Amino acid sequence: MSVSTGTRGETVPTAPPGNPAVDTADVAALLERGRALSTPVLRAAVDRLAPPMNTVAAYHFGWIDAHGRPADGDGGKAVRPALALISAEAAGAAPEVGVPGAVAVELVHNFSLLHDDLMDGDEQRRHRDTVWKVHGPAQAILVGDALFALANELLLEIGTVEAGRATRRLTTATRKLIDGQAQDISYEHRERVTVEECLEMEGNKTGALLACAVSIGAVLGGADDRTADKLEEYGYHLGLAFQAIDDLLGIWGDPVATGKQTWSDLRQRKKSLPVVAALAAGGPASERLGELLAADAKSIDFDSFSEEEFATRAALIEEAGGREWTSQEARRQHAVAIEALHEVDLPARVRAQLTALADFVVVRKR
Amino acid sequence: MSVSTGTRGETVPTAPPGNPAVDTADVAALLERGRALSTPVLRAAVDRLAPPMNTVAAYHFGWIDAHGRPADGDGGKAVRPALALISAEAAGAAPEVGVPGAVAVELVHNFSLLHDDLMDGDEQRRHRDTVWKVHGPAQAILVGDALFALANELLLEIGTVEAGRATRRLTTATRKLIDGQAQDISYEHRERVTVEECLEMEGNKTGALLACAVSIGAVLGGADDRTADKLEEYGYHLGLAFQAIDDLLGIWGDPVATGKQTWSDLRQRKKSLPVVAALAAGGPASERLGELLAADAKSIDFDSFSEEEFATRAALIEEAGGREWTSQEARRQHAVAIEALHEVDLPARVRAQLTALADFVVVRKR
Repeated sequence: MSVSTGTRGETVPTAPPGNPAVDTADVAALLERGRALSTPVLRAAVDRLAPPMNTVAAYHFGWIDAHGRPADGDGGKAVRPALALISAEAAGAAPEVGVPGAVAVELVHNFSLLHDDLMDGDEQRRHRDTVWKVHGPAQAILVGDALFALANELLLEIGTVEAGRATRRLTTATRKLIDGQAQDISYEHRERVTVEECLEMEGNKTGALLACAVSIGAVLGGADDRTADKLEEYGYHLGLAFQAIDDLLGIWGDPVATGKQTWSDLRQRKKSLPVVAALAAGGPASERLGELLAADAKSIDFDSFSEEEFATRAALIEEAGGREWTSQEARRQHAVAIEALHEVDLPARVRAQLTALADFVVVRKR
Repeated sequence: MSVSTGTRGETVPTAPPGNPAVDTADVAALLERGRALSTPVLRAAVDRLAPPMNTVAAYHFGWIDAHGRPADGDGGKAVRPALALISAEAAGAAPEVGVPGAVAVELVHNFSLLHDDLMDGDEQRRHRDTVWKVHGPAQAILVGDALFALANELLLEIGTVEAGRATRRLTTATRKLIDGQAQDISYEHRERVTVEECLEMEGNKTGALLACAVSIGAVLGGADDRTADKLEEYGYHLGLAFQAIDDLLGIWGDPVATGKQTWSDLRQRKKSLPVVAALAAGGPASERLGELLAADAKSIDFDSFSEEEFATRAALIEEAGGREWTSQEARRQHAVAIEALHEVDLPARVRAQLTALADFVVVRKR
C-alpha cells in the first residue's frame, strides 16, 4: 500500500483476488482520506514545537531523514485517523469535524511510541532507527511529552463543551495506554503470564486508544455518551482483534511486508498471545516450549540464536495450538466489535465503513 | 520550616527578627493550608495509578522510602498549592474550589521533575535519590507520563466549562515547561547564552507553571479571562523572582538550608542568571571568568575540582557583578509582579496574601 503525506492520493490499490468479504478499494480510500485530511493539521501542530523538538518530531513521523533532508517515510497504516473521521460521520457531522480528534489521537499514539521505544530499547521502527537512537534519550522523552501536551492543546483550543468531553475521553485512554505499558514491562520480568493478563494488557495498550479514535469524532460532532460508549466498545474489541493479528505477524509475518525481522517478537522474548496461549494449553509441545523459553530467559547466547532455533520455538507454539487460538481470538474480537455496532443507531454508510475497516484489520498482512 | 503531609499543622514557625516586610507566620499558615487541603486529594489521585506506578510515585513524593516503608519526606515548599487556593478566593470562591487546580499543578510540576532528573542525570532531589536512580529510567518515564495524564483527568472529570478552560491553561503552561527544558538542554552545549535567553528559559521553566497556579483556582471559581490573565502576569514575574533567588541559592546558598551541595549550580556547570550576567558584564573579572569556564567545559578533571576552585569562580561571578545583578533582578521581577495586582479588582485580603507570598519568595533562604 502506498503512503502519501499531505496530499490526497489519486490512486488506491485494487482489491486482491479471492477475498470477497472485504472491499479493499473502499478501505484504502478511507485510510487515504484519513491521512489526507489529518496530515496537514498534524504537520502544522508539530510546527508549533520549539527547535529542536520540531525537527525531532518530523524525523519520527518520517517527514525528514536523520540529516534533516525531506523524506517520504512510512507514517504507519493510519487506521486511527480514518476511524476518527468516520466517527464524526457516525454523529451525522462532516468528516472534517473529526480532524482535530484524529490528530490528537495520532499525537498520543506517537507520544507512546517515542517513550515505549526508549523504555523497551527498541532500535528500529517503520524501517528506520528510532528517535532515541538518532537524537538521544533526552529528546525522545522531551518530544514525547510535547506531543502529549500538543494533543490536549489542539482539542481544548476548540473551546466547546464537546471538546472538553473529547479531551476527557482521550485522557482516560492515555492513562490506560500507560497502564498497559507498565503491565508489559512488569510481564517481561515474570516467567508466566496468563492469557487473561495478556488480553488485559493488550486492551490497555491497543484497545483503549483505538476505542477513543472511534468515539472522538462523534463526541466532537455532538453525540451523546451512550453512542460514544458503544462506538468505543466496537473500537476496543477492534483493537484487540488488531493486536491479535499483530501478534501473529510478529512471529509468522512476512518480513518484506511487515518491515520487521523474521521471528521479531520471539527475538524480543515478547509474551504475546500465541506464546501465552501455547504455554497455557498443556500437552507435550506446550511443556517443551515452556522448558525452552525458561532456559532462553537465562541464556547468555540468546542474541546469537540461529534462524533454526527461532523456527523450532515457532513450530512448538503452533503445535501447542497458540497460532490457531490467536487466529480464532482475532475472529472472536472482530465479531464482538461488529455486535456492538448493532446496539447503536448509525447511518447505513457509516456502519458499512466500520464493518469494512474491521474486516481489513483481521485480513491485513502488515 | 516543618513539613506535614495529610494533616493540618497546628504550629507555624515564628517570624524571624529584623524582617518586618514579611509576615512569616501568615505565609507559613498559607503554605500549610495549601498542603493540608491538597495533599489528601493528591494522595488519592496517585492511588489511582496501577502498580508499581503508585509505589514509584509515592516514593517520589516522599510518602514512602526506597524499601516501601512509610516516610515523612520533604514534599517541597508547596508554594504552588498555596497560590492555587488563594487564586480561588481571588474569584470570590471558597479556597476548596482551587483544590483540583492545586493538585493538577502539583502533578504537572512533579511530572517535569521526574523527566528532567532523568534527562539531566540528576541523582539527588529533596535530600533523596531520584526515581530513576532507585526504580530505573523506565519507571521515571512511565510515572512522569502517568502524573501528567492524571493532572488532566482530575480537572476534566469536574465536567464544567470552567474546568475545560482551566485544563487549557494548564496545557499551555505544560508546553512552555517543556519548551524551557528543551532550551535548558540546548544551552548546555553552547559556550555563551545571553541574559535574555536565560530569562526566557527561566520564564518557561518556572514562570509559566507558577502563573498557572495563580490563575487556575480563579478560573475554576468562574473568573473571566482578563482577571485570569492579570493573575498569571503576577505569577509569571513571581516565578522569575523565585528563579533568580534559586539561582543565587544555587551558588551562595547554605547547604544545610537548601539540602544541596556547596556551589551546587557551579558543579553542574549551570548557565544560571548570576553566571550569564557576569559573563555579559565585561571587564577583567568577567573576562577571567569566561576563560576559566571555557577551560572547565573541556576539562577532564572537572569532577575532582576542590572547594577552592569553585570558590574562585563564585568570587569572580560576584566581582563581575553577577550576584548583585541577579539580586536586583529578583527585586525588579517582584515589583512587576506586585504591579500586575494593581490592575485587577481583588478582595483586600487576597491582595495582602499574594503580596506576602511574593515577599516570602524573595527573602527565603531555601
